[in-house]
Amino acid sequence: MKNLKIANKLFNSRLILGSGKFSNPGLMSAAITASATELVTVALKRVNLGSEQDDMLEAVGSVDLLPNTSGVRTAREAVFAAEMAREALGTNWLKLEIHPDPKYLLPDPVETLMATIELAKKGFVVMPYVHADPVLCKRLEEAGAACVMPLGAPIGSNKGLKTLDFLQIIIEQSQVPVVVDAGIGAPSHAAQAMEMGADAVLVNTAIAVSGDPEKMAQAFKMAVEAGRMAYESKLGAIADQAQASSPLTSFIDA
Amino acid sequence: MKNLKIANKLFNSRLILGSGKFSNPGLMSAAITASATELVTVALKRVNLGSEQDDMLEAVGSVDLLPNTSGVRTAREAVFAAEMAREALGTNWLKLEIHPDPKYLLPDPVETLMATIELAKKGFVVMPYVHADPVLCKRLEEAGAACVMPLGAPIGSNKGLKTLDFLQIIIEQSQVPVVVDAGIGAPSHAAQAMEMGADAVLVNTAIAVSGDPEKMAQAFKMAVEAGRMAYESKLGAIADQAQASSPLTSFIDA
Amino acid sequence: MKNLKIANKLFNSRLILGSGKFSNPGLMSAAITASATELVTVALKRVNLGSEQDDMLEAVGSVDLLPNTSGVRTAREAVFAAEMAREALGTNWLKLEIHPDPKYLLPDPVETLMATIELAKKGFVVMPYVHADPVLCKRLEEAGAACVMPLGAPIGSNKGLKTLDFLQIIIEQSQVPVVVDAGIGAPSHAAQAMEMGADAVLVNTAIAVSGDPEKMAQAFKMAVEAGRMAYESKLGAIADQAQASSPLTSFIDA
Amino acid sequence: MKNLKIANKLFNSRLILGSGKFSNPGLMSAAITASATELVTVALKRVNLGSEQDDMLEAVGSVDLLPNTSGVRTAREAVFAAEMAREALGTNWLKLEIHPDPKYLLPDPVETLMATIELAKKGFVVMPYVHADPVLCKRLEEAGAACVMPLGAPIGSNKGLKTLDFLQIIIEQSQVPVVVDAGIGAPSHAAQAMEMGADAVLVNTAIAVSGDPEKMAQAFKMAVEAGRMAYESKLGAIADQAQASSPLTSFIDA
Repeated sequence: MKNLKIANKLFNSRLILGSGKFSNPGLMSAAITASATELVTVALKRVNLGSEQDDMLEAVGSVDLLPNTSGVRTAREAVFAAEMAREALGTNWLKLEIHPDPKYLLPDPVETLMATIELAKKGFVVMPYVHADPVLCKRLEEAGAACVMPLGAPIGSNKGLKTLDFLQIIIEQSQVPVVVDAGIGAPSHAAQAMEMGADAVLVNTAIAVSGDPEKMAQAFKMAVEAGRMAYESKLGAIADQAQASSPLTSFIDA
Repeated sequence: MKNLKIANKLFNSRLILGSGKFSNPGLMSAAITASATELVTVALKRVNLGSEQDDMLEAVGSVDLLPNTSGVRTAREAVFAAEMAREALGTNWLKLEIHPDPKYLLPDPVETLMATIELAKKGFVVMPYVHADPVLCKRLEEAGAACVMPLGAPIGSNKGLKTLDFLQIIIEQSQVPVVVDAGIGAPSHAAQAMEMGADAVLVNTAIAVSGDPEKMAQAFKMAVEAGRMAYESKLGAIADQAQASSPLTSFIDA
Repeated sequence: MKNLKIANKLFNSRLILGSGKFSNPGLMSAAITASATELVTVALKRVNLGSEQDDMLEAVGSVDLLPNTSGVRTAREAVFAAEMAREALGTNWLKLEIHPDPKYLLPDPVETLMATIELAKKGFVVMPYVHADPVLCKRLEEAGAACVMPLGAPIGSNKGLKTLDFLQIIIEQSQVPVVVDAGIGAPSHAAQAMEMGADAVLVNTAIAVSGDPEKMAQAFKMAVEAGRMAYESKLGAIADQAQASSPLTSFIDA
Repeated sequence: MKNLKIANKLFNSRLILGSGKFSNPGLMSAAITASATELVTVALKRVNLGSEQDDMLEAVGSVDLLPNTSGVRTAREAVFAAEMAREALGTNWLKLEIHPDPKYLLPDPVETLMATIELAKKGFVVMPYVHADPVLCKRLEEAGAACVMPLGAPIGSNKGLKTLDFLQIIIEQSQVPVVVDAGIGAPSHAAQAMEMGADAVLVNTAIAVSGDPEKMAQAFKMAVEAGRMAYESKLGAIADQAQASSPLTSFIDA
């Protein structure tokens, strides 16, 4: 499989993990290892910035951290949070999340664009979480986003790729990597995104709340790889009629 | 992962391969190996029964053969073909396919039931290919079928699980393994079937006509395993609202 | 709109109503009138055969009755019930329903075919309720069915056309009218069936359990007519790109 | 049916028509009459502003005009076009369309919000065409939009409600009318939008390019009314099991 490249960094894994909702750090640590991910999002709010020790950061281990701005409601708050994260965690990578709506956690397109413009100027590697809006994704790319992270469905809903038709357009038009984020509730959803040509997926809830997070993390790892391999191997066309795979001449008359 | 058991045989792999449409025996052989399948269907018509040598059988190698009756149109023809296959290939395993319609290759429910009754009495391990009809599947089970093979979509259409609602009922009700056959056009479709609790899938066209059959076979192998692992690990519920994975208390006000 | 013809009878309405689940005969009567239906199914079991008076039959009024065999489990029982219905209600029209499964009420393909063969010979106008199985529908047509009644989804589920891909094939191949039965839960589902070229639809639960059965019956009447008119007027093709309906030359530069 | 109210105007019809793509003014005029619409969008570019006579405006007849800004690419151009339209056509109603992308004609969220803010201040009744983005719709409402017009699918694609999950959220949250615009390709799509609780739909391509625009316009009129009536009558719940509408006690044993 081809490597994924975001900003100047190469990744073997095309699966990004979120660190929310795990019932304990040990389970999270096992899931991270099983997933073979190289990038884990962490809500800045959850990091114990003043302390010497932080259970969650320890659980993430040596994998790269991707701080997110979950909890901010405006571009201004996002920029402030981003700078704090850079200071505290020593990384300029940032998952930008601005969702003022507490029920569906859907992102604000205008504030996200404004924050992206400013953060890109300030040297951040900005990875914005947005609606699957092809025009917005194009504008984020022009504003200097390192990738775009369109949603499949509301965060944590496990509904899958409800924005399929628009993800397809985004993938077709984007010059930066497309990471499908939110809504991916099963390995088949992750495989489907990769088969369409998405560059990566971000998964959290589906792994963290499953009956066996470690095994589920491995299942997602395999599904993402399977989907990518299928994309690289080119899938066959969809046909309206049947296409016999076995010969159709009558067995008896032949 | 739990083993699959059909009749008295245990399988490590839950992926059955079809041998049609490969552009040459070498490609098929490589795909079989990459898929790690333990069961390959072969159309009886394609086997060179009189000859000492058969390129296709050689390509299948040491994997178990599952002769199919593709080309027959009635129960009577199917029974005749089955007996010939048993004689020629030395196996009482049989994929029963009776599809009189040349355009969509959809199976005949009545002839399939009649043939299953008779073939089960004659000692065959009958694996009938049928519409995703829950009542028919139940009757085939009662008639002695070793598993049921409901279709996802017309053969070779690559359309995926168009019979989803009915596959779910079949899986819920069946006492014999459920193998989803026909229509699976991408690894994500295979993973989806496994996540729902299907016991196995049969894939042919999607691998054989892909740009790289060997790599695609490996992708299907991984997707089937991922889907099965997800099923065993229990997927989270689908929610209508968002479920925050990161904390939602305002970052700034906190 | 073209008339619908089943057997030798012409219908202005392409909406058949079921008479179950109404909370009282008055509501049913109002719904029948509002729907403008010309054919109402009645479960033979519910008819008070010995009595001089029958509230339900009175509620149906002057609309043609279509007795159904709901409750039978085999072809033999169905033939017996059909003959009783013919005797008691003075009609040789029959909706044939054989569903042994109490949970999903899905029809038995083999018993239904056997009963159709026999009832057609006995002079009944047989309208069999079946799975959306194109091969079975063809065989029912050959056996003398006056129409075929494939299901969209389990009875009363309101799920809509979950068998869409197969209904399309049935409509394409059938020489007798195709009446989509079961699962239609909203006027949009009925319109969709008609737009695809179905000849009629049967609706019961969606009207009977709605908050206002009379108004809902009128909504279905209009949706069925709208769908039929759209079919006759030919719908435009589905496009993958946008097709501007307004001119795209830049307003300002022009 | 309840009337639709946009700004201070009451409408009997919940179907808005577009005037593009008709092959001649006579066909358009007939379709407008058959649809019973009370509001017809007209691309400002197509109006022959300098002339005494305008075939298209004559064809629209006495129905209210809704000028649209199709062809503009920025908020600034949109404001300029809006003022010209107000001057030339004597109406402050405006369908705001800003779509810089010539292939999919998808709207720009940021420019649309900026233009809405300014046009609302200038006294326009602003009806913005946008992606089905719930947060954006909320911000447009706060900015003074008279309604929101989220898309179902790319303009002219006839694909239907591909944004279903998000339209549902928009309808749930909106304090101004929700008019589903773009992508509606069949009467069943229009009915579905209305059943969900959309306040109105805008249709153009599906009528204009159909084989019989006048008849198709009538079909849409009926489907919109049917969908609205179903919404007001309350649809039944969707069930995972069957719900018998006929009695299930065995016919024979009873």
